Amino acid sequence: MYQSTTQTRVRYAETDQMNVVYYGNYAQYFEIGRVETMRELGFTYKRMEDEGVIMPVVELHTRFLRPATYDDLLTIKTQIRSLPTSYHIEFFQDVFNEENKILAAGRVVLYFLKKETWKRINIPDDLREALTKYF
Amino acid sequence: MYQSTTQTRVRYAETDQMNVVYYGNYAQYFEIGRVETMRELGFTYKRMEDEGVIMPVVELHTRFLRPATYDDLLTIKTQIRSLPTSYHIEFFQDVFNEENKILAAGRVVLYFLKKETWKRINIPDDLREALTKYF
Amino acid sequence: MYQSTTQTRVRYAETDQMNVVYYGNYAQYFEIGRVETMRELGFTYKRMEDEGVIMPVVELHTRFLRPATYDDLLTIKTQIRSLPTSYHIEFFQDVFNEENKILAAGRVVLYFLKKETWKRINIPDDLREALTKYF
Amino acid sequence: MYQSTTQTRVRYAETDQMNVVYYGNYAQYFEIGRVETMRELGFTYKRMEDEGVIMPVVELHTRFLRPATYDDLLTIKTQIRSLPTSYHIEFFQDVFNEENKILAAGRVVLYFLKKETWKRINIPDDLREALTKYF
Repeated sequence: MYQSTTQTRVRYAETDQMNVVYYGNYAQYFEIGRVETMRELGFTYKRMEDEGVIMPVVELHTRFLRPATYDDLLTIKTQIRSLPTSYHIEFFQDVFNEENKILAAGRVVLYFLKKETWKRINIPDDLREALTKYF
Repeated sequence: MYQSTTQTRVRYAETDQMNVVYYGNYAQYFEIGRVETMRELGFTYKRMEDEGVIMPVVELHTRFLRPATYDDLLTIKTQIRSLPTSYHIEFFQDVFNEENKILAAGRVVLYFLKKETWKRINIPDDLREALTKYF
Repeated sequence: MYQSTTQTRVRYAETDQMNVVYYGNYAQYFEIGRVETMRELGFTYKRMEDEGVIMPVVELHTRFLRPATYDDLLTIKTQIRSLPTSYHIEFFQDVFNEENKILAAGRVVLYFLKKETWKRINIPDDLREALTKYF
Repeated sequence: MYQSTTQTRVRYAETDQMNVVYYGNYAQYFEIGRVETMRELGFTYKRMEDEGVIMPVVELHTRFLRPATYDDLLTIKTQIRSLPTSYHIEFFQDVFNEENKILAAGRVVLYFLKKETWKRINIPDDLREALTKYF
């Protein structure tokens, strides 16, 4: 299994009048988690895209357990639990507050696509190799 | 079953550099669908909140089937498939483009909570009664 | 002078914990106003972009006079007060609530750029011609 | 003069199909700059709000000079150039990319309001005192 954690602070813009973070904004927290996970592996999503591979999200599942509130320093824990070998990759992503209470639990599936054609391709070799040692 | 449809047009702000709508923005489309569904029933979420009931989202599940693109006029179809009788309500929400192709399929679960205490309460009587005739 | 009006309803996502619309979201309301202004002239910004012209914003000025609140049906009034003849265009955009009170007054300047090179170009001929009859 | 700098990384969600950051999102970058400025002074905006003072934005002026792009590590420089003594405060906020090129220059005016009544109040004493030594 590969796991990484990163942090982000809740912006005022991300709250709504329920005085908590709007549910739609967790998708951005999950994005931050995935991007930093890849960076720790020696990759950047940016470079992958520059090299012609895009990774659209095809599934998003989230359970909201406790609300995040303004100015909270959130910890996003991102796990890849099985080595991706084909055209998709699955991330398990949990968000915690400063008291280490879990706020949201997510599962996100993305495809690897050729940027020009939006056709599915296998996970790029270098990303798969970087991940292999963790499995 | 109760069903309603509403429309919204994709904003430039909602696209990302993949030239499609960012996956996190569908949560807002689903919100629009739920709000207009309630309005058609003779309710407004706003009034419900003014009367002390909030409805936070506790589960969000989305499958992204085709990308939405800038300036698309989207149709959001919202279904309540079973009469809510307790402290939660489940919406099935699909997004279609102008060619009537499905772009995303969502399932969203919300709780009814007392605004002051965030304690679970049963669905307000008037909302349940308005829904009853459809089941 | 050319003027058009369009409407949009405040989304829950657009509020913040001050119980009003977050100041950053008015940029999206202004975008909606400009896009619909162009559509009324027989244009779409989408088509312009497909034809190789982009219009990035280079200046945004906003005065926030009264707060917009959740579920308000906003009216966005958009004016072009002088015929654009060069590489920039200026929009005056005001947002009103249902009681016709002004909430925000904006001025937005955009450039016409060639999409491939980001070099300035003059306003496309067909857009200038469509505008000319109003001046 | 009081000045502080903070950093934030451009999210994918913040880009649009022009392959740059959407103009409306700079308001969030400015918000981050102001919040961290206050934190460096020993304050948090969160605490101020808990103590009954809100700070809505009443003016936003931005010049967009160069585009910010995905994954850029932005530096937000925030200046308070004159000691606020009344019910408003003015921030000058510039955004730079990793090559230290300026991307956007902003000026933001906010009011101090009593949270319960939205009536103007003077800058809280402790904030004014913390600022005084820089002027």
